[in-house]
Amino acid sequence: MASFRAETDSFGEIQVPANKYYGANTARSIINFNIGGPSERMPLPIIKAFAILKKCAARVNQEYGLDSTIADLIVKVADEIIAGQLWDHFPLVVWQTGSGTQTNMNINEVISNRAIELSGGTMGSKQPVHPNDHVNMSQSSNDTFPTAMHIAVVLEVQERLLPGLKVLLKSLETKKQEFKDIVKIGRTHLQDATPLTLGQEFSSFVHQIENGIERVNATLPRLYHLAAGGTAVGTGLNSRIGFAEKVAAKIAEETGYPFVTAPNKFEALSAHDALVELHGSLNVLACSLMKIANDIRHLGSGPRCGIGELSLPENEAGSSIMPGKVNPTQCEAVTMVAAQVMGNHVAVTVGGSNGHFQLNVFKPVIVTNVLQSVRLIGDSCVSFSKNCVDGIIPNTEKINRFVNESLMLVTALNPHIGYDRAAKIAKHAHTTGSTLKMAAVSLQMLTEEEFDIKVQPKDMLGPK
Amino acid sequence: MASFRAETDSFGEIQVPANKYYGANTARSIINFNIGGPSERMPLPIIKAFAILKKCAARVNQEYGLDSTIADLIVKVADEIIAGQLWDHFPLVVWQTGSGTQTNMNINEVISNRAIELSGGTMGSKQPVHPNDHVNMSQSSNDTFPTAMHIAVVLEVQERLLPGLKVLLKSLETKKQEFKDIVKIGRTHLQDATPLTLGQEFSSFVHQIENGIERVNATLPRLYHLAAGGTAVGTGLNSRIGFAEKVAAKIAEETGYPFVTAPNKFEALSAHDALVELHGSLNVLACSLMKIANDIRHLGSGPRCGIGELSLPENEAGSSIMPGKVNPTQCEAVTMVAAQVMGNHVAVTVGGSNGHFQLNVFKPVIVTNVLQSVRLIGDSCVSFSKNCVDGIIPNTEKINRFVNESLMLVTALNPHIGYDRAAKIAKHAHTTGSTLKMAAVSLQMLTEEEFDIKVQPKDMLGPK
Amino acid sequence: MASFRAETDSFGEIQVPANKYYGANTARSIINFNIGGPSERMPLPIIKAFAILKKCAARVNQEYGLDSTIADLIVKVADEIIAGQLWDHFPLVVWQTGSGTQTNMNINEVISNRAIELSGGTMGSKQPVHPNDHVNMSQSSNDTFPTAMHIAVVLEVQERLLPGLKVLLKSLETKKQEFKDIVKIGRTHLQDATPLTLGQEFSSFVHQIENGIERVNATLPRLYHLAAGGTAVGTGLNSRIGFAEKVAAKIAEETGYPFVTAPNKFEALSAHDALVELHGSLNVLACSLMKIANDIRHLGSGPRCGIGELSLPENEAGSSIMPGKVNPTQCEAVTMVAAQVMGNHVAVTVGGSNGHFQLNVFKPVIVTNVLQSVRLIGDSCVSFSKNCVDGIIPNTEKINRFVNESLMLVTALNPHIGYDRAAKIAKHAHTTGSTLKMAAVSLQMLTEEEFDIKVQPKDMLGPK
Amino acid sequence: MASFRAETDSFGEIQVPANKYYGANTARSIINFNIGGPSERMPLPIIKAFAILKKCAARVNQEYGLDSTIADLIVKVADEIIAGQLWDHFPLVVWQTGSGTQTNMNINEVISNRAIELSGGTMGSKQPVHPNDHVNMSQSSNDTFPTAMHIAVVLEVQERLLPGLKVLLKSLETKKQEFKDIVKIGRTHLQDATPLTLGQEFSSFVHQIENGIERVNATLPRLYHLAAGGTAVGTGLNSRIGFAEKVAAKIAEETGYPFVTAPNKFEALSAHDALVELHGSLNVLACSLMKIANDIRHLGSGPRCGIGELSLPENEAGSSIMPGKVNPTQCEAVTMVAAQVMGNHVAVTVGGSNGHFQLNVFKPVIVTNVLQSVRLIGDSCVSFSKNCVDGIIPNTEKINRFVNESLMLVTALNPHIGYDRAAKIAKHAHTTGSTLKMAAVSLQMLTEEEFDIKVQPKDMLGPK
Repeated sequence: MASFRAETDSFGEIQVPANKYYGANTARSIINFNIGGPSERMPLPIIKAFAILKKCAARVNQEYGLDSTIADLIVKVADEIIAGQLWDHFPLVVWQTGSGTQTNMNINEVISNRAIELSGGTMGSKQPVHPNDHVNMSQSSNDTFPTAMHIAVVLEVQERLLPGLKVLLKSLETKKQEFKDIVKIGRTHLQDATPLTLGQEFSSFVHQIENGIERVNATLPRLYHLAAGGTAVGTGLNSRIGFAEKVAAKIAEETGYPFVTAPNKFEALSAHDALVELHGSLNVLACSLMKIANDIRHLGSGPRCGIGELSLPENEAGSSIMPGKVNPTQCEAVTMVAAQVMGNHVAVTVGGSNGHFQLNVFKPVIVTNVLQSVRLIGDSCVSFSKNCVDGIIPNTEKINRFVNESLMLVTALNPHIGYDRAAKIAKHAHTTGSTLKMAAVSLQMLTEEEFDIKVQPKDMLGPK
Repeated sequence: MASFRAETDSFGEIQVPANKYYGANTARSIINFNIGGPSERMPLPIIKAFAILKKCAARVNQEYGLDSTIADLIVKVADEIIAGQLWDHFPLVVWQTGSGTQTNMNINEVISNRAIELSGGTMGSKQPVHPNDHVNMSQSSNDTFPTAMHIAVVLEVQERLLPGLKVLLKSLETKKQEFKDIVKIGRTHLQDATPLTLGQEFSSFVHQIENGIERVNATLPRLYHLAAGGTAVGTGLNSRIGFAEKVAAKIAEETGYPFVTAPNKFEALSAHDALVELHGSLNVLACSLMKIANDIRHLGSGPRCGIGELSLPENEAGSSIMPGKVNPTQCEAVTMVAAQVMGNHVAVTVGGSNGHFQLNVFKPVIVTNVLQSVRLIGDSCVSFSKNCVDGIIPNTEKINRFVNESLMLVTALNPHIGYDRAAKIAKHAHTTGSTLKMAAVSLQMLTEEEFDIKVQPKDMLGPK
Repeated sequence: MASFRAETDSFGEIQVPANKYYGANTARSIINFNIGGPSERMPLPIIKAFAILKKCAARVNQEYGLDSTIADLIVKVADEIIAGQLWDHFPLVVWQTGSGTQTNMNINEVISNRAIELSGGTMGSKQPVHPNDHVNMSQSSNDTFPTAMHIAVVLEVQERLLPGLKVLLKSLETKKQEFKDIVKIGRTHLQDATPLTLGQEFSSFVHQIENGIERVNATLPRLYHLAAGGTAVGTGLNSRIGFAEKVAAKIAEETGYPFVTAPNKFEALSAHDALVELHGSLNVLACSLMKIANDIRHLGSGPRCGIGELSLPENEAGSSIMPGKVNPTQCEAVTMVAAQVMGNHVAVTVGGSNGHFQLNVFKPVIVTNVLQSVRLIGDSCVSFSKNCVDGIIPNTEKINRFVNESLMLVTALNPHIGYDRAAKIAKHAHTTGSTLKMAAVSLQMLTEEEFDIKVQPKDMLGPK
Repeated sequence: MASFRAETDSFGEIQVPANKYYGANTARSIINFNIGGPSERMPLPIIKAFAILKKCAARVNQEYGLDSTIADLIVKVADEIIAGQLWDHFPLVVWQTGSGTQTNMNINEVISNRAIELSGGTMGSKQPVHPNDHVNMSQSSNDTFPTAMHIAVVLEVQERLLPGLKVLLKSLETKKQEFKDIVKIGRTHLQDATPLTLGQEFSSFVHQIENGIERVNATLPRLYHLAAGGTAVGTGLNSRIGFAEKVAAKIAEETGYPFVTAPNKFEALSAHDALVELHGSLNVLACSLMKIANDIRHLGSGPRCGIGELSLPENEAGSSIMPGKVNPTQCEAVTMVAAQVMGNHVAVTVGGSNGHFQLNVFKPVIVTNVLQSVRLIGDSCVSFSKNCVDGIIPNTEKINRFVNESLMLVTALNPHIGYDRAAKIAKHAHTTGSTLKMAAVSLQMLTEEEFDIKVQPKDMLGPK
């Protein structure tokens, strides 16, 4: 029977599981927002980001007079949360108040009760560490949630997305170098075209990912802007002059990233354009990854009835029957991620467009989608690199056969025998199913030797 | 200098080109909404639908007392508009009032002035046919614009979309029949798989389009609901009891489609769920068409370095150099249409979700996107059928070669020699690059004759 | 050291945690697809649906000769999974093979090993219940995964979405009745317009949800089509004649829903139009819910500086400072869900459009988004009804004040004193900030008594 | 009957209207792609951009040996096209080959025939200016179309989008200054909150547009990259060394924008990430504009039954009945544009993700959507500024009343009388419907004078 304790908020008393640190606001939210179940919990990076904020705010508040014992306790618990130790005490789902108020209170309550426990007090007593007066000091949900959004997203971008993209970039670069002398048929409209090298083909992928990294980086300046200090509507009412700047500086110090206070707090609370912008760069990456993974799996299609220019590594049984049935499963994971990111982009856009007056109340849905996209792209790039790209082997026999069989090589004869006669050779080869060389010889336009000298795919790889 | 005349509305006087029938409201809108230029004009089907509504409303108003000379004049001009004769008098763009009020007034003004002209009066005098009192009698922009939306969309769906889909369905059906005995390799994950017939492959396309037609039809009942009679907010204030039902019946008679009055006028003005719903079915069609056109162009890729199982008709010069370079241009047009429809779907959704209180004011953007999608799918299906599907020829030589070379056929040996030995044959063939038969014989597991009897792609096309 | 055991698949041997029932294929997938972490697990409803399928397939296979002891064991374990007991043994993420093969193998392996355990055998021995030969008998990933998709979605639609929508429908209906005599101001373009009743206003919401239910139901016929029996490419190779029909019938019996075998298995494997279609209906619901929740929170805005016609129930502390600050948190959760559904719709569409040849390999991303949308709409409708709609109270004082102050009532005088004089009254009231009645009297157009008789909002609620 | 002439291409002869300059390729495309009708024509900016490219290519080709008479003729006609004189000769629709080949040929043919006409030759003779050999010299559709895409988009961004945004920025800035001393109630969750100034509220809009301009500018570097010189697959086969760099430099000189040759031509042909990226920034603008226009129309709602803090300019008759019914029509146009841009973004994304191998064949649909979004945002910003923002007048009486009636002001008493007593005052005022001051006095907590000194909205506008 001791398994519950009473907690109170301005709404009154409510029973809370005795083994949980959270308090009345959290308990009430569990009841009021029974939407989606455990898979819909507020993402962990948001909880961690909130803990970073609470830690830094405590230190700044200490400068403005908060008792140092209390500040130390807040910092200690915040560090436990940052270390991931109290994850079970954050049960709230994304689908709650659109300002994320209840998640802010969840943090405040957990820090308060855990600090009380550490100092030997009675949980729920709000003594000596009060969730509102101390943990939330100089703060409002309206400015803390957007601050946590930016911190969480920057950390995930820097520590998961960009490293993942760089792994893929390196992996593609290596292949580009490795494949630089392999001449192969080009394809436009899916139809045979003039040749290029496999290295040139991969250079396009490299360029896409390079640009992708640049695009993500270009959005960071505005993500470093923090709303903290704006309090309820952006004016900073009830906070202290200098608090906003100091707390941003402290967060920069804590995380190692150049966070600064947002130049306009009204915008920082009422709009999330910076996140819509970041997600725009993720959307471009989704397009790039869709293209790259599609090309690789089409080039690896076969083994006998497809294009089969590339062999992709076999990571699992493709089929219980047929050797050689290597399914391009890594490409499939990547392209599914791309589809998800394109969808998330619309959720973020709709959420981002629907703010009203001094507050956008689609914060949880926006940040959840951004964090998922960031994570999925980062992780899938690593998986794709390690389990697919790194192990790609060109089937040079197939590549050579295609490039040599292609009728497109006839283009090389134009300067020598003129367009009309070249076209006749190609047409003849097409109709009879023969090679260009055979057609050229049989039409008595060139000798075998002349043909071999003049028609060289390796001479068709650049301007003259 | 006689090239302008004065027109008035409740806002005052304004100069209007003398050779145009429109009046002050239209002239003012041209000035106030200089957005996008001529390519952004309100779609013609909306203008025609409005004319149908005005014609039918005039006849119903006549029953309630409108002077029959005036009603006759309105009907006469409406018929001219329906016939497409006065298109130049409707210059307004989509990007105007979100209720489409100015387009409603454009119609009212054109009918009024043209009727005045026909009856020998002075344009701009509003005598004997007044744009508001007579042409707009018992109507409000708020109920007429959504009525015109439904009429326009139903007409385009019935007369352009569904016929186009049926052309494609027939075209695919014909090919399905024609190809029913052609056994070919199947492909899953883009990799060689067990065989099926080309007819079975096309049967999937047929089924998608059949379902697509069914899906569009399933949305029609709610599109037949007309808002007319709801007037300003849905109550029908200032209209007459029975007007709503009579005008819907008259429109049904005029168009031949079973329009009825909307069961809830408040919903009919404040939401456009029926159009979002219709566009959902267009979005499914976009997915289907993307799949079908993609498959066809991939199956037609080559001629030498792709799959090349199908030859697509050559409608234009694919390249000035190479015979056989037939670009799948019809597939490209269809897939571009699919991309547009998926985009339009989001525009319609965002517009549809943003109504407020008694009125949704995204009407013009919603209907414009719906009409474009309807038209593009309808037209591109006809073009795709006529210029591509109808002329598809299977390359039986390539098809046979692939299906016979495929290692997947080994599956047929499982019941006879067991999975393990079958796998050995396949592995041997894969490693040595030989055929299954050669591998089977060389491993002394079957004779050539036994192999030929037991491994028959045509016996692998269904359950046993 | 006994904490791992060796498991094998056609790829070789791999160590698996001793306390898990899954086998080699699952273990390999965990390594190969380290994407997204625990929050990205394949949704539970898919696992349950797979268990239903495996159970029914075992019974049908028994009819075709599968040993009844083995069939009984499969059924027993499947029932445990359906009861949710083995959830910890399904660790795979959504971002795997696009055919869901590894989840199919996860099920096969768990059923096999748990059945072996139940029968006293050695886990990993595949004796007496083999994951492929017995649990996957007559099945392929390519037909089982889409079968599980349809089963899972139908169950969630029937047991979570539709009940949730019906709760909301009833809740709105009740309010519509309750509010039927409350006359209030209408608003178009957000501007004051002619009056309607609050019941009429809510009738629009009722109609939207009614239609929404109808739209979802209209998509069910195609969701009842099951791919089972199509095996690898849709031909049904290696299954038995009649298997497809029997397994669908068994699933219908097991679930109580009218599942039947898909009329075209090629389509059922290579496209997911039926799910794109269903999600189209969810997208319409997202639009409807966005409109309804937006209207309710705007009508409840205030308490003093907004519209304030409605009081929404207070479920949590809106603010620690101000009584009466009731945040429309339920509306916020609903509109965030709407944004997510609109985003998911694009993910489903992109996935649905990208099938190739005989297989669409975006299956996991498609079904995960559909299931999330279904769940979120269902749950949020219940939460919204219970915690918001049911407790809405009209502020009749405010409602009356607005409707009586509104200048729009002047419309009622048109038939009595003519449009021009009525307009003068309105203009006078507007300019002087007085009431219409005061203006009418002061302009000596009507007496107070005449005004009171003629200008009655309650007489402006319908056609005459 | 002399109204047609014969034209030829490699496909044969075809009749072309005698009064048109286009040739066989164009004529064939008209027949083959009967999709969408006149409203679906390839956008004019693409035609102009192509003419700029052809002009510059002619001059560079002249350096490499093209006869100067021919080059001069090409330049002359290109200038006519740039001046918009030959628009009627470009009838092709967007829904054609996905590489835009037929539009490239349309340009080549028009320049050829018009040049022939200018030099007194016979149209269709290809003498002295050949459409392929001279006008298309060193070019392929595959590199010219993407070059024209970038030129067209940069010109429209620079000359229409950015100027439009700057007009709006200036307009909002002016209002921000003008409103800097007007203290008003803040609103979060649509509920009354603590005060801010109207200038602070507008500063948020200013900041959004400022950032929006910065975001668009950030995408320009990659739009300055031109594909010209890549020819068929990106290798530059059949062009001359240096051609790519020279033609980009010439285009930079011609347009005044810093175009350079693309660093990777393979990427420039096979992907359009730079356009997806640009459209990402347009998508953010759509979100910003939706927020701004929504806020302005809600703040202007009324005149009596809404918020009514702002008076928006009246540009047209809002209603024929009621003075003061000013519909926020400019806001409606802007928000419809925002919805369209969000939709276009998905079309661009789907198109951008679907390239294959050496070519993306969704070029026309991508560029058409980008150009429409660019144009609509640019134009609507100007219209919105001029016809709405510039004329906004604050209703100071309403603004003052709200801010003074608001219960939120009680916050200012916390430091003086403590939270609990302040809450009692607010609760009393809420329950009795009185002002805070009356409540404070009646509860004997402060005198009227004390209240007036301590509760000053103007002291609540920033941190202390």
